[in-house]
Amino acid sequence: MRINEKHYKSLWEKENFPEVISIIDQRKLPYFIDIIDINSSSKMIDAIKSMALRGAPLIGVAGAYAAYLACLEARISLNYSNIDFALNLIKNARPTAVNLIWAINKQEKFIASTRNFDELVEGSLQIARDIYKFELECSTKIAENGVLLLKDIAEKNNGKINILTHCNAGWLATIDYGTATAPIYKARDLGIDVHVWVDETRPRNQGAKLTAFELYHEKISHSIIVDNAGGHLMQKGFVDCVIVGCDRVALNGDVCNKIGTYLKALAAFDNGIPFYVAMPSSTLDFSLDNGVNSINIEERDEFEVLELDGLFNNSIINSKVANPFSRACNPGFDVTPSKYVSKLISEKGLHNPKREELILLKD
Amino acid sequence: MRINEKHYKSLWEKENFPEVISIIDQRKLPYFIDIIDINSSSKMIDAIKSMALRGAPLIGVAGAYAAYLACLEARISLNYSNIDFALNLIKNARPTAVNLIWAINKQEKFIASTRNFDELVEGSLQIARDIYKFELECSTKIAENGVLLLKDIAEKNNGKINILTHCNAGWLATIDYGTATAPIYKARDLGIDVHVWVDETRPRNQGAKLTAFELYHEKISHSIIVDNAGGHLMQKGFVDCVIVGCDRVALNGDVCNKIGTYLKALAAFDNGIPFYVAMPSSTLDFSLDNGVNSINIEERDEFEVLELDGLFNNSIINSKVANPFSRACNPGFDVTPSKYVSKLISEKGLHNPKREELILLKD
Repeated sequence: MRINEKHYKSLWEKENFPEVISIIDQRKLPYFIDIIDINSSSKMIDAIKSMALRGAPLIGVAGAYAAYLACLEARISLNYSNIDFALNLIKNARPTAVNLIWAINKQEKFIASTRNFDELVEGSLQIARDIYKFELECSTKIAENGVLLLKDIAEKNNGKINILTHCNAGWLATIDYGTATAPIYKARDLGIDVHVWVDETRPRNQGAKLTAFELYHEKISHSIIVDNAGGHLMQKGFVDCVIVGCDRVALNGDVCNKIGTYLKALAAFDNGIPFYVAMPSSTLDFSLDNGVNSINIEERDEFEVLELDGLFNNSIINSKVANPFSRACNPGFDVTPSKYVSKLISEKGLHNPKREELILLKD
Repeated sequence: MRINEKHYKSLWEKENFPEVISIIDQRKLPYFIDIIDINSSSKMIDAIKSMALRGAPLIGVAGAYAAYLACLEARISLNYSNIDFALNLIKNARPTAVNLIWAINKQEKFIASTRNFDELVEGSLQIARDIYKFELECSTKIAENGVLLLKDIAEKNNGKINILTHCNAGWLATIDYGTATAPIYKARDLGIDVHVWVDETRPRNQGAKLTAFELYHEKISHSIIVDNAGGHLMQKGFVDCVIVGCDRVALNGDVCNKIGTYLKALAAFDNGIPFYVAMPSSTLDFSLDNGVNSINIEERDEFEVLELDGLFNNSIINSKVANPFSRACNPGFDVTPSKYVSKLISEKGLHNPKREELILLKD
């Protein structure tokens, strides 16, 4: 998608020089657009750990490229065991990221079967490119499937639609197009008059910072709102549907996503507004029968609540935004019961949040 | 209540010298505790306008004292018309504050009936003191009535209670004790083991700044949470009840309060948790039959969403916390339908949010 009229993806190989992987430093967005060139596995691990890269699908791709860079390094050092060592570090760069482990498992399987350095390098690059392509296609298909829902609404509404979204499930979190945002970009491409309510998404403000950044550069009409405002806007008829992403979906259709999603689902339900979840089928956890009762919610550091980073005098600084000495509690995610979910949008189609439908998505 | 072990009220007459009214500068809280001595009606008007003083009950008291200061000034200038001029300025310092107009109307009525400077000064001081006393008693009685609800819960819960509150309806917004916080302080006084979940309350963070400040200095166990977190905590059983204040209540029991209140009411309802509203009976609007359909919601300046003030290098600064050039929408309040309200707590008792009960509160 576009930044200042130029097309970007969230990660790319340097032209004719795949030994260098370029990424956008997401820690500096939306204030500064810095491209980082990464030419070693350890630098890619650092980028993942430090959240220069974020978003489960993107982290998976970045991990796969990190494995390829490790193979390149092994060809120079002529030492296979360095690869295993690197793979282990990559896997643990963000321990809760399912896509990362999935990507590294693919690389690991191939690497274990090969004992030729050139083949290792070529093969691992191919796997990284395949995963990249897979994620890209996943977003494209979620866009195509999800836009059917938006078209239905817009047709009844003079070609207009007001969509509320929470957090950033956009192109910056994938390779391009996004998950929750993918149907929005597609709707715009089809000429639907789209306006997006962007939840700022405290504590880390990924909505106000990243989703608004994406929409602004794609020239899509949008308004940032505090997380408190969505219920009121729905009650007043200013929201036609909600689309969010997800971190994990249980077989019964319960959706684990960024903290605050559940409150928006309740408000949508109370006001008869459809609540859609963009769900790459890789996010569906077949081992999980029920979400509300069994998903453990990560408790994150309290400083995310007590401090907020922002731009001051053209520098990114952290300021304290709460009473000194008070403590905070910071659950990172919540679980929306399936009864509040209208449809799940995957790359395979549209699904009701019901066990009998979701079980069919198992390959 | 206490700040650093010393007892304060939010406004007080200087000892033996009622010509000077002292207030705590709330713009600098929680970072700096600055007392402002006010010795003229224009300084009090400035304090109200600039939000050095905030909270409807406190603004009412401050307005009444401003009228008294205007009478003092008239005694020096020997000019009655200066009083009318001042009263008009006071009324318009915060045009939406019902309590302010109510207080000034009382002063105005008395002032119109008197043409003796000494009587004017003495009488207007007495009215200001009466209003002060009335607000203080109102908080005390809300505490006594509300704590009955908390005691019931704590008794079933081994003497413990977890209360969630939104925004600041505390002693800083009244004279002492507060409205929503009054039953909480009372419960603590009765030996109940209280823990408070403090919604930070974006956009202005009155929860994280003022409510947390109050509770910290009163040594009440509390945790600041982002506004997104309450639903999750309720779902997990970590919240026993919600208490909030209100800006206006309609005769049918619909409650207008700080933006985001409605979302917490929905979550409380979904999880079978009681949702209480502390309502000084002056907040009940007998002219309003229905809240959801008829209360106009103030749209506030977008900079409140796009920027946030915090402490950086020991100074209070404003930093940008959203994508530059994106716009924001900033409704200040929302309306919670009465079906989600369990009880209204007034200084007169406990009330169901029903027309037939609320109409009885009319004097």
